[in-house]
Amino acid sequence: MNMGRYVFGIDIGGTTVKLGLFGVEGNERICLLDKWEIPTVKANGGASILPDAAKSILAKMEEKGIREEELAGIGVGVPGAVDVEGTLTGGAVNIGWKSFNIPKELRAYINVSVKAVNDANAAALGEMLAGGGKGCRNMAAVTLGTGVGGGIVADGKVLTGAFGAAGEIGHIHLEDEETEACGCGNRGCLEQYASATGIVRLAERRLAKDEKPSVLRGGRLSAKRVFDAVKAGDETAVQIAEQFGDYLGKGLAAVAAVVNPEVFVIGGGVSKAGEILLTFVEPAFRRYAFPSCAGARFALAQLGNDAGIYGAAGLFIDAGRP
Amino acid sequence: MNMGRYVFGIDIGGTTVKLGLFGVEGNERICLLDKWEIPTVKANGGASILPDAAKSILAKMEEKGIREEELAGIGVGVPGAVDVEGTLTGGAVNIGWKSFNIPKELRAYINVSVKAVNDANAAALGEMLAGGGKGCRNMAAVTLGTGVGGGIVADGKVLTGAFGAAGEIGHIHLEDEETEACGCGNRGCLEQYASATGIVRLAERRLAKDEKPSVLRGGRLSAKRVFDAVKAGDETAVQIAEQFGDYLGKGLAAVAAVVNPEVFVIGGGVSKAGEILLTFVEPAFRRYAFPSCAGARFALAQLGNDAGIYGAAGLFIDAGRP
Repeated sequence: MNMGRYVFGIDIGGTTVKLGLFGVEGNERICLLDKWEIPTVKANGGASILPDAAKSILAKMEEKGIREEELAGIGVGVPGAVDVEGTLTGGAVNIGWKSFNIPKELRAYINVSVKAVNDANAAALGEMLAGGGKGCRNMAAVTLGTGVGGGIVADGKVLTGAFGAAGEIGHIHLEDEETEACGCGNRGCLEQYASATGIVRLAERRLAKDEKPSVLRGGRLSAKRVFDAVKAGDETAVQIAEQFGDYLGKGLAAVAAVVNPEVFVIGGGVSKAGEILLTFVEPAFRRYAFPSCAGARFALAQLGNDAGIYGAAGLFIDAGRP
Repeated sequence: MNMGRYVFGIDIGGTTVKLGLFGVEGNERICLLDKWEIPTVKANGGASILPDAAKSILAKMEEKGIREEELAGIGVGVPGAVDVEGTLTGGAVNIGWKSFNIPKELRAYINVSVKAVNDANAAALGEMLAGGGKGCRNMAAVTLGTGVGGGIVADGKVLTGAFGAAGEIGHIHLEDEETEACGCGNRGCLEQYASATGIVRLAERRLAKDEKPSVLRGGRLSAKRVFDAVKAGDETAVQIAEQFGDYLGKGLAAVAAVVNPEVFVIGGGVSKAGEILLTFVEPAFRRYAFPSCAGARFALAQLGNDAGIYGAAGLFIDAGRP
C-alpha cells in the first residue's frame, strides 16, 4: 500500500460533484481537511465529469502544495452499480454515463490508485467511519430520499455484491396487494412506502379513505408536512407514520436476518424529521425481527451530504477497505 | 499465518460430530484426505463433545504421522450463533452448550490455531469452496431442512454479523396473515412455508380447502411425498409446490436486494427433490427480485453432509478467511 498521507474523496451527484481532501492518520482514520463542490456537467453523456473532477483535484494539490507521491489515492462514489474492479456495470442514467471502468478513466488524468463504489455504499462507509455508525463494524445505512437506498457494511467492509447491487434494500418486496409500479418495474417495493414520495402516497391513500379532519387536508402533501403534523399531534398523520414505520420496520427486519447489523443508520431527506421518525420504525422492526437480530440499534445519520466523500476516501484505510 | 500443510474441519451436529482431514494446496485450495464421525455425547451439557473431538483428531494425527507444527489449524462449525472471536453467543440448545469461547476451550487439548463459526455458515463456505457455488465469491446458501437456514458469502468471506446471526434467512417475515407461531416466536417467517414441515403445513391447508382428488390425500404427508406427487403430475401437489416456490422466491429476492449474490445454492433434505424444486423457486425469484439482482443463478448443493467440514477447514485458506 502506498504510504501517502492524503486521500481525495469524490461524490458524483446529479447536480454537483462533491470533493473532499482528507488526511490519513495511521492507516486507521481519516480527517477532513477541505471540501468543495463543482457543477456536474451532464452534456455529452457526462463526458467532462471525471476530467473536471481531476482538474479540480490537481488545482487543489497545487494550492496546498501536495505532491502526487503523497497521495494514497482517490476514492469515487457514483450513482450506479459498481463492481469490485470499479466498473460501472449498468451505467449511471442520472448523469448520462454508460458502462466503463472508472479507475482506468480517472488514472488517465492523475496517476494514483483509484477506487470506485456505488454512492449509497460510499455514504454507508462514511457514516461507519465518522458518523452515526462510528465504532461499529456491522452496519446497515438506509437513505430515505426520493427513493430508498442502502449500504451494508459487514465486518468493516462495504458489500458490493456480484453485480454491484448489494444494499439495494429499497427494492425488497413487501406488499403483494400493490397495484402501482415501482420505478424498478416491480410492485410492492419498500421504496413505494418509505421514500419521500412513498410517504406522500401513503398519505393520499389514507386521506382518501374517510373525511376525518386533519391538518394534512388541502395543499400540497410532502413527507415533511406529514411528520410536522405528527409532531403537532394530528391523528391521521400518526396513522400514516405508523404505516410507514411498519413497512420500513418489516424491510429492515429482513435486512437484519440476512446481515445482522449492530446498528441501522437512517439518513436522507426524510430523516430530517429527526428522532420522532425512529419511534415509528424501531417498534415495528422489533415486532418482525428474528430475536437474535432484534437487538440492533437505530441512529440518525450525522454526516449529511459529506457522508459520500468520507466513504469514498475511507476506501483507502484499513478500517474501510472493501 | 502458520504454514502447516494440514487442516482439520469439525462439524458438530446433534447426533454425530463429523470430522475431516484436509490438505492445503498453496493457501488457496483444500482437498479432503480423510473423513469420519464420532457420536455426539450430549450428557453433562455436552461437556465431552470438544474433548472427544480433540482426542479423535490427536488419534488421527498419530495414525497419519502428522505433527502439530504441520497443522494450519482446526475449524469448527457449531449449531448456534458464533461471533467473530469464536464465542458461542447464545449457547447451542441442540447439544446442551451454554455460551463460551470455542477456540479457547479446544486449544486446551490441541495447541493450534482454532476458528469457529455457525454450522450453516460453515456449510455455505464449504459449498463455495468445493460444491454448488464453486468459483463464485458472492453466494447465498439456503438449507431447506426441518427449518430454513442460510449462510452468506460476500466477496469470499462468510458473514457473521454483529451477534453471529447473519444468514438467518429462514426468519425473514413474509406473511402478515399467518396465525401460527414460528419456532422463533414470530409469525409469518419464511421457514413456516419453505422448510420440510412448512411444506407439509402448506399441503394440509391446501388439501383442506376442497375435495379435489389428489394422490396426497390419506396417509402421512411429507415434503418428499409432495414433490414425488409433483413429478407424477398431481395438480394439487403442483399448486402446493407453486406456493412454496412463491414464498421462497420472495424471501430470496429480499436476500438478493441486500447482498446481491451471484448464485443461490439450495441444500438440505428438501433439496433432495432435485432440479424440479428449482423450477418452482427460480421463476418466483425473478418475479420479485430487483432487476439488477435478478440475474442470480440457482444451483443445488453438492457436498451434502460434507459441506460443514469443508467450510470449517476452509476458514484457514485465503479464499475463505472470514
